Amino acid sequence: MTTDPISPEALDKLADVAVKVGLNLQEGQDLVITAPVEALPLVRRITAAAYRAGAGVVTPILSDAGITLARFENAQDASFDKAADWLYAGMAEAFKGNAARLAIVGEDPMLLAEQDPEKVSRAGKANSIAYKPALEKIANFDINWTIVSYPTVAWASRVFPDLPEAEAVEKLANALFSSSRVLDADPVTNWTDHNANLRKRTAWLNEQRFDALHFSGPGTDLTVGLAEDHEWHGGASTATNGITCNPNIPTEEVFTTPHSARVDGVVRSTKPLSHQGSLIDDIEVRFEAGKIVEAKASKGEAVLQKLLDSDEGARRLGEVALVPHSSPISQSGVLFYNTLYDENAACHIALGQCYSKCFLNGGDLSSEEIAARGGNSSMIHVDWMIGSAEMDIDGILHDGTRVPVFRKGEWA
Amino acid sequence: MTTDPISPEALDKLADVAVKVGLNLQEGQDLVITAPVEALPLVRRITAAAYRAGAGVVTPILSDAGITLARFENAQDASFDKAADWLYAGMAEAFKGNAARLAIVGEDPMLLAEQDPEKVSRAGKANSIAYKPALEKIANFDINWTIVSYPTVAWASRVFPDLPEAEAVEKLANALFSSSRVLDADPVTNWTDHNANLRKRTAWLNEQRFDALHFSGPGTDLTVGLAEDHEWHGGASTATNGITCNPNIPTEEVFTTPHSARVDGVVRSTKPLSHQGSLIDDIEVRFEAGKIVEAKASKGEAVLQKLLDSDEGARRLGEVALVPHSSPISQSGVLFYNTLYDENAACHIALGQCYSKCFLNGGDLSSEEIAARGGNSSMIHVDWMIGSAEMDIDGILHDGTRVPVFRKGEWA
Ligand SMILES: [Zn+2]
Ligand SMILES: [Zn+2]
Ligand SMILES: [Zn+2]
Ligand SMILES: [Zn+2]
Repeated sequence: MTTDPISPEALDKLADVAVKVGLNLQEGQDLVITAPVEALPLVRRITAAAYRAGAGVVTPILSDAGITLARFENAQDASFDKAADWLYAGMAEAFKGNAARLAIVGEDPMLLAEQDPEKVSRAGKANSIAYKPALEKIANFDINWTIVSYPTVAWASRVFPDLPEAEAVEKLANALFSSSRVLDADPVTNWTDHNANLRKRTAWLNEQRFDALHFSGPGTDLTVGLAEDHEWHGGASTATNGITCNPNIPTEEVFTTPHSARVDGVVRSTKPLSHQGSLIDDIEVRFEAGKIVEAKASKGEAVLQKLLDSDEGARRLGEVALVPHSSPISQSGVLFYNTLYDENAACHIALGQCYSKCFLNGGDLSSEEIAARGGNSSMIHVDWMIGSAEMDIDGILHDGTRVPVFRKGEWA
Repeated sequence: MTTDPISPEALDKLADVAVKVGLNLQEGQDLVITAPVEALPLVRRITAAAYRAGAGVVTPILSDAGITLARFENAQDASFDKAADWLYAGMAEAFKGNAARLAIVGEDPMLLAEQDPEKVSRAGKANSIAYKPALEKIANFDINWTIVSYPTVAWASRVFPDLPEAEAVEKLANALFSSSRVLDADPVTNWTDHNANLRKRTAWLNEQRFDALHFSGPGTDLTVGLAEDHEWHGGASTATNGITCNPNIPTEEVFTTPHSARVDGVVRSTKPLSHQGSLIDDIEVRFEAGKIVEAKASKGEAVLQKLLDSDEGARRLGEVALVPHSSPISQSGVLFYNTLYDENAACHIALGQCYSKCFLNGGDLSSEEIAARGGNSSMIHVDWMIGSAEMDIDGILHDGTRVPVFRKGEWA
């Protein structure tokens, strides 16, 4: 007899939460899923749950590590500046037609670590350009969308390199299921409570109308000006199409839009960043007037530099997010090498594109109006972790008054 | 120790033949692959071979039986009139941009046999409508394309229901590899010879310029008028983009376009037709002036009737093809429940869309000009087998002279 390291019952519940809480999929709505092939047991369950909820057509687009590697190992140089434009343009069309979007993540975070960083970066850039029209619809929150995860063998083996495969998968699966709050008898009600707690935090922050946040901790002395008319969000949120969804499962963060020209000081990352199959560790950067003017990393510095050179907006911030150090994901002590988890374990900032929903009446603003308020624009959006148990954060009001927000990594 | 029932070396050779002979993929050319998830070992090899040949971007779109069934088992009624329009429209865009097309088949031929035929037919029709712009580029031979197959467990278990799984897969794999002519030391040269033999047949048929073919055999007494300016094709063929490819691996047929208004008489199928997951057996139809006016089947008659009602052109012929009974696929004695194989085991006719390449200068003809010459138009193209060891075929010249073409299933 063998036991399945991934509980089928927990997968059923995760599928249910993904469709009902994550997407809040509406009757007749189409759904586009992206997922690694290994996540098929979850893809099938989500597809079934989506159809039970009345989905129009569910279209999963499956990726495979072996196919990705086949390119890096065999393609001629010119290939790396190309992307599947037709596929990404098609997704943008689907979203224009009000299709919802679900991403299942779980790829090997170090899949491309052995490949030429130059080619990895060029291929990533070509993909970003092709994907931009679709990504904008997600970033602008035109449609309901969500991201969930699946404990693949490749990912689990990176997170728990010393455990046998099945044990690593089982351990990662349990960490994912518990932090995604699907192990209770009634996960959907659990999520309602969790969303109410996050809403209390965003309500308080939105009342304060801080001009800036000041972060201090080891290696960090950073003032992040907030965009004019910025709005804090967290947990459930309502897309422009009127549907309230939870864009991340799990989620612990509250977040808003920094001012792209008013960020100054130095900041050091507190967790490694897994980016396009490479690891970037010990990032240290200096901001002047919103722009990164110096950057180094103990590992993956070449990948970091290429990332910063993606476009004009890649050296400026598009998001600032607060997560207490006592967050369950942080307390698990696991480094997931996956933004969905690691960003919910610590305060973080994101390089690149801002979320228009993080403005008052953001759905009605043109890109020019967003830029005028300090919202950043870029083809990238890359979160990296700066929080720790030693992080203090002050809110700075327009009159210069400082209000404690975090002390030693916790809400003050 | 376990041995792989599917030889990795044979898969390597099949991938090589698919890219070099099937597609003749050109440097810088993009490639769109569709395949069942189970065919990943072949998809990865074809992707690698394509990139080695200089491919731009290879985009595999993977399908999964479990996902397909999740829809039929859970979706609400309205879903079955919808399709992933954005995906099919995207494929048409890719082909417009000169991407090549490779399909890997191997799905369970009876996947949908237990589902409501009404829903199967509606979903199939919605897909056909969405797929039409892309299919037209394939049917019009605008681009180089090919179809190959992969011996999935589900398919092998249908073909050899009495064998243990691994044995069934091994037996099907060997049948596929040998009929695809990839087991020799030099499969590419082998294909050059095979193509030369087929070209001799098409050259003779094209010299004859028959007005019609007359088929006679048990239950069959059918006159198939040939379209004006029809041209016979078989084996390697040159697409409008100038690239010579082999659209089917394997292929044994020579084929041309019938006249959509000049088919008369009765015809009986000689092999079951596997269509959209259902089996249609013992088809008997009567044509009058090109149109099927009576149709029955001992099994799957409802599916057949729905197929004939797909659109105006579904009751008329778009292809007639000649395959000797001694073809290696026929001699294998295996019923594959798969058009790619079964149509290369016997003479066949196809309901629906004609191939514009099967006209003199077909690439330059408008759809109006094709229709004026007798070419049929439809959203479907479904081949079914009418050949046997008892089939006689006469060519009828414009002056009424009869020329023996087949006697007892073989070239006369
Ligand atoms: Zn965030
Ligand atoms: Zn972010
Ligand atoms: Zn044919
Ligand atoms: Zn055909």
